Amino acid sequence: MKAIVFDKELKLDKNYPKPTPARGEALIRVKLAGICNTDYEITKGYMGYVGVLGHEFVGVVEDVNDDDKSLIGKRVVAEISYGCDDPECEWCAKKNYRHCPNRHTLGIWKKDGCFAEYMTMPVNVLFEVPENVDDEQAVFVEPLAAACEITEQLHIEPTQKVVVLGDGKLGLTTALTLNAQNLDVLLVGKHQNKLDIAAAQGVKTQLLSEFTPEKKYDVVVEATGTASGFETSMSLTKPRGVLVLKSTVATGKELNLAPIVIDEITVLGSRCGQFTPALRLLENKRIDFTPFISGVYSIDDALEAFEANKQKDNLKILIRI
Amino acid sequence: MKAIVFDKELKLDKNYPKPTPARGEALIRVKLAGICNTDYEITKGYMGYVGVLGHEFVGVVEDVNDDDKSLIGKRVVAEISYGCDDPECEWCAKKNYRHCPNRHTLGIWKKDGCFAEYMTMPVNVLFEVPENVDDEQAVFVEPLAAACEITEQLHIEPTQKVVVLGDGKLGLTTALTLNAQNLDVLLVGKHQNKLDIAAAQGVKTQLLSEFTPEKKYDVVVEATGTASGFETSMSLTKPRGVLVLKSTVATGKELNLAPIVIDEITVLGSRCGQFTPALRLLENKRIDFTPFISGVYSIDDALEAFEANKQKDNLKILIRI
Repeated sequence: MKAIVFDKELKLDKNYPKPTPARGEALIRVKLAGICNTDYEITKGYMGYVGVLGHEFVGVVEDVNDDDKSLIGKRVVAEISYGCDDPECEWCAKKNYRHCPNRHTLGIWKKDGCFAEYMTMPVNVLFEVPENVDDEQAVFVEPLAAACEITEQLHIEPTQKVVVLGDGKLGLTTALTLNAQNLDVLLVGKHQNKLDIAAAQGVKTQLLSEFTPEKKYDVVVEATGTASGFETSMSLTKPRGVLVLKSTVATGKELNLAPIVIDEITVLGSRCGQFTPALRLLENKRIDFTPFISGVYSIDDALEAFEANKQKDNLKILIRI
Repeated sequence: MKAIVFDKELKLDKNYPKPTPARGEALIRVKLAGICNTDYEITKGYMGYVGVLGHEFVGVVEDVNDDDKSLIGKRVVAEISYGCDDPECEWCAKKNYRHCPNRHTLGIWKKDGCFAEYMTMPVNVLFEVPENVDDEQAVFVEPLAAACEITEQLHIEPTQKVVVLGDGKLGLTTALTLNAQNLDVLLVGKHQNKLDIAAAQGVKTQLLSEFTPEKKYDVVVEATGTASGFETSMSLTKPRGVLVLKSTVATGKELNLAPIVIDEITVLGSRCGQFTPALRLLENKRIDFTPFISGVYSIDDALEAFEANKQKDNLKILIRI
């Protein structure tokens, strides 16, 4: 089968072996997939991963290696991590597979990803896509779930002031998601055309150049993906406020952490999320991801798709398989 | 009066003007004071402070500029920050003066400190010292309150594992305080003689050289005062755990914050605390600070006392006034 593989270099392999589902797994024919910046980071060595890339997808179940075959023919998405399912594992017991020390993560850690004609995943991390959610929306469920994670971790009161820094995919998705929960959120970024996407769906926005930094926000979400964004975020967080760190790429900069102590700030690391609330947002049409789509490429043009993903002006690049 | 003043350099001023209490303030004759590392940081330029140093003390009220004179003759300690007391100020309304944007902080910010024969502080931040608590214990109430702050900010469950990194004054006080609340705490440090102080009062301790770092602690308290301590602390915090940052000196090191996001760690900045629970610990003899005292100097030998404070082997240096 065709698969986009990273092994020292990124390549389209036209003869990659079709996977066989293990016990408890489904065989899924991938329909549409999305390129995430994590995929790009992996091609630069992140996680030391070798294998089929990709973790954002929507597909159709073709087979199930289990007694219950009811998912066959269904359109599904999948949470990206699955655990050891050992009854002794506190994380698997809570279905918090992403923290299981023996986890596998689709296209990131010990599990071939979704940029291929076929993939397998355990049935217990699959979610059927509601009929009224088309593929071009469903393919966004994984980053949307990551945005939903914030209010799973943190009680944001409706009267609190929230600011999201950064108008890339991550910042836009986060601002739209918090706004869809009726929270008081301001999105600040450098690109009027990107801010307009959020503004068109009801989010308050402001250009960074017109934004007056004040230490007055109860919750600040760092979504710039830059190290300096972390320091800016600290300067916006009011005493005893929460700085949500959404980006994993803030590495290697000299940082002065004293403001965290002086202002008794909470820095909350936030990663992936559960799919149920994300699918509910999509089913209820609370967010429209159509304006995020900057290009749709065939799997045959995958390398071109990755090049397009590098363009700063582009948001989401999809791969049709 | 005699006062230890920092103004470009540290000096003993024998003719510093005796302060006059403003309306609402008490005039306090200082009996005993403690040198904190913050005092030392100020002599290196921290906060740009100029004036009388010192914020840890016990003294006797000699006068009160207010209708209620009942505190005269009482032995008192004082929370170190007081606010604007504007009814519109959310921080003063909560008596959280340390976060009032117009605050004054004893010997640190806009208010002469306690290394002097006399000082003034508003009556509303004074606390009478229980009779059974002698001066040599009462003088520790401010750092003890800072340790109590952790459980004011964070609910630590009695079954959770806590590790405190660092066996200086801060780490010892923190470990003793958490232990005094019946929590499961391990203190890790480099100095057997310092660890022994905590061990003698019932704290589990371990030398860093014999400690096996594992990512298994629900709560990690960074009290080494070093930048590398922060990275070690991240490596000990289990997924979704809390790293309490107690030290303000972790500056300027290149830090990789990705583990915070990947493991969804909460970093909680923690500073000063309320005096009531700290005084209760002292009154109930839950902690004995006697072994912390490495030296007691007369105010006339203040410069010598500051030199002694720099010695790594020393814990608390007191100044008798």
